[in-house]
Amino acid sequence: MKVAIMGYGVVGSGVAAVLKQNFAHIKKNSVSDGLELKYILDLRTFPGDEFESLVINDFNTILEDEEVKIVVETMGGVNPAYKFVSSCLEAGKSVVTSNKELVATKGFELLETAKRNNVNFLFEASVGGGIPVLRPISQCLASNEIKEVAGILNGTTNFILTKMIEEGAAFEEALKTAQQLGYAEKDPTADVEGLDACRKICILASLCFNKHVYPDSVYTKGIRGITEEDVENVKKWGGVIKLIGSSKKLDDGRITAWVSPAIIKNGSQLASVSDVFNAVLVRGNAVGDVVFYGRGAGKLPTASAVVADIIDCAQHIKERKALGWEDASEGYVVPFEETVSRFYVCTDSDKAKVDTVFGVVEYISANAFITEEMTYAQVCKKAELSGGAKSIIRVTDY
Amino acid sequence: MKVAIMGYGVVGSGVAAVLKQNFAHIKKNSVSDGLELKYILDLRTFPGDEFESLVINDFNTILEDEEVKIVVETMGGVNPAYKFVSSCLEAGKSVVTSNKELVATKGFELLETAKRNNVNFLFEASVGGGIPVLRPISQCLASNEIKEVAGILNGTTNFILTKMIEEGAAFEEALKTAQQLGYAEKDPTADVEGLDACRKICILASLCFNKHVYPDSVYTKGIRGITEEDVENVKKWGGVIKLIGSSKKLDDGRITAWVSPAIIKNGSQLASVSDVFNAVLVRGNAVGDVVFYGRGAGKLPTASAVVADIIDCAQHIKERKALGWEDASEGYVVPFEETVSRFYVCTDSDKAKVDTVFGVVEYISANAFITEEMTYAQVCKKAELSGGAKSIIRVTDY
Repeated sequence: MKVAIMGYGVVGSGVAAVLKQNFAHIKKNSVSDGLELKYILDLRTFPGDEFESLVINDFNTILEDEEVKIVVETMGGVNPAYKFVSSCLEAGKSVVTSNKELVATKGFELLETAKRNNVNFLFEASVGGGIPVLRPISQCLASNEIKEVAGILNGTTNFILTKMIEEGAAFEEALKTAQQLGYAEKDPTADVEGLDACRKICILASLCFNKHVYPDSVYTKGIRGITEEDVENVKKWGGVIKLIGSSKKLDDGRITAWVSPAIIKNGSQLASVSDVFNAVLVRGNAVGDVVFYGRGAGKLPTASAVVADIIDCAQHIKERKALGWEDASEGYVVPFEETVSRFYVCTDSDKAKVDTVFGVVEYISANAFITEEMTYAQVCKKAELSGGAKSIIRVTDY
Repeated sequence: MKVAIMGYGVVGSGVAAVLKQNFAHIKKNSVSDGLELKYILDLRTFPGDEFESLVINDFNTILEDEEVKIVVETMGGVNPAYKFVSSCLEAGKSVVTSNKELVATKGFELLETAKRNNVNFLFEASVGGGIPVLRPISQCLASNEIKEVAGILNGTTNFILTKMIEEGAAFEEALKTAQQLGYAEKDPTADVEGLDACRKICILASLCFNKHVYPDSVYTKGIRGITEEDVENVKKWGGVIKLIGSSKKLDDGRITAWVSPAIIKNGSQLASVSDVFNAVLVRGNAVGDVVFYGRGAGKLPTASAVVADIIDCAQHIKERKALGWEDASEGYVVPFEETVSRFYVCTDSDKAKVDTVFGVVEYISANAFITEEMTYAQVCKKAELSGGAKSIIRVTDY
């Protein structure tokens, strides 16, 4: 079966490499006529590259070639990826992507297009890199009602936080180390500000709860404001600060969905996820808690997830896989201000004032404490009333 | 679609409950005509049970009913489960089982029978209870060559070891607690001696390396001999003792496969798996390390995995899923004596003798140390030469 790759960057070149390296393995075990790479679409040229001869610059070559049944999109960004993917699906080609931004913003529409044209649109690699997450969730989903999904979804920020927790590093210092090691980009905004994690929790929530969640409906806060003092206080309390993406189904049918630094108790399976590793926790009504763990990024891990999707497309070329969800509806995502949690608060106010405003709290030190359960709006208001807080961080129950 | 359950014990009754509880959910999302339970085969009767009217005693009723397309086997044991499952497959019915003993001893044969009759034989629930493990491995497998699979495969022994590690309990004391809590059976042999873990590593190794591994070819040692002294020594060294099932592909095409107490370094993702939780680690050539974690047993978790398999059968009723492997061959599994590792040794011999026989070792205390890499045969011989060892435990590299 013939395959084309659009975008010959880190992941795209990894896909080409894995297809080549494991050709015999795939032919023997999964796709009897093998998977043959026919084109690589890129605006650049790659003199001396082993796949140089496959590189083309005109998208229409792929679109018009009826032999190409499966197209891989590893360009990134929404444009022109969206247009290209859409056209491929309309032309009866299955599409596999690792592009989280595309799935988070256009997933519903592209799944509908795939359905209309009786082809597959798969995106396992868009969450958790090489860790099988979306497909096992579909499986869990089949026999469970999923109540909650949450995780450490971004390796860069987890690496930075690990440095802060284990070595007492300051944020800027840890970020610099991450950049030196190639874990963080020169412009680290998408990772550090939580945008990458936001796209991933959108995809997870859409799949788990069967309704699209768009990034702009998800409260998103990154890790830039976390201080060494916070890290120390939380350690003293018996936990760690992680950047968490979380979504939970409420009894009234709405969901919560947010990305934010949050406190995980030591002993929780998420607390021990360190360095660049990712982990996704799923809570089902029958299965209980299940965690998927591994490297959330990297050329070969991500490529291996893309290739697994290609194989799945090849095996479901006649009978497409059932995958899809409803479009978003208004008021579906609860405003972050209304979400309920216990909170860690660090303040310069005096104890008498704190006690008056907050009532019963659990003190960690003279100026840091954990509140009772309340909404985010309430904790912000109380913090203001008691003279202002330096930090407010939610405490999770996993 | 009509389903029958054979064996109305813990898991079987869980399957009936999950099918009923999630009927609408399954009908909406997965199997459009729904999954309807038609018979429950058991030798007993269940007066007052909500499914009482479905209980039958004659296997032939199921076998001869052409409406029943999917049969669930939750009887346990090899006989008569093997005969019943075989007959169902021959009669063109797909079979789902949670019975690890059946799969470990008859898996190759039953998969062949399923293939010949163009039906499915699925057994996700036989490893890791409700945690999706086998299906994600198939997916990893599709685009990776798997190099190694290992895990904490038995919740009972992990609970006992956790009590020993965290509370300094003696083995017998921890076992008693496990029995009181219902985590260990009155006769705990299958768990404590490693037989249950052995069946699971057989299934995992068969799937990962595409060749059946029978329990009698797998070295199996349980946790009965582990002392408080060992636990303390290993803690001092910076690790924990876990009951590990492991299988690794060697460059010469053979595999290692064993179940044994083994030492895991703190910080490893397996080290923090405590209580009754299970975790399976898979090493692929592209994806790196991936870990699946959750409750490895329990009525509803296990039932939810069975029901996910039933759904998969229903969705692949016309086109069966490709699943199968070769039969075992002689000399495929490396004898345990020849497997190589570093070892923890606890002895009463004096240091001079140890140094003479073992050469360079890493001392933990006056009478406990970690050796260099050597075969199990070598460490046993050296231990004997130096005056005998109280304990020998292998050190893993994950």
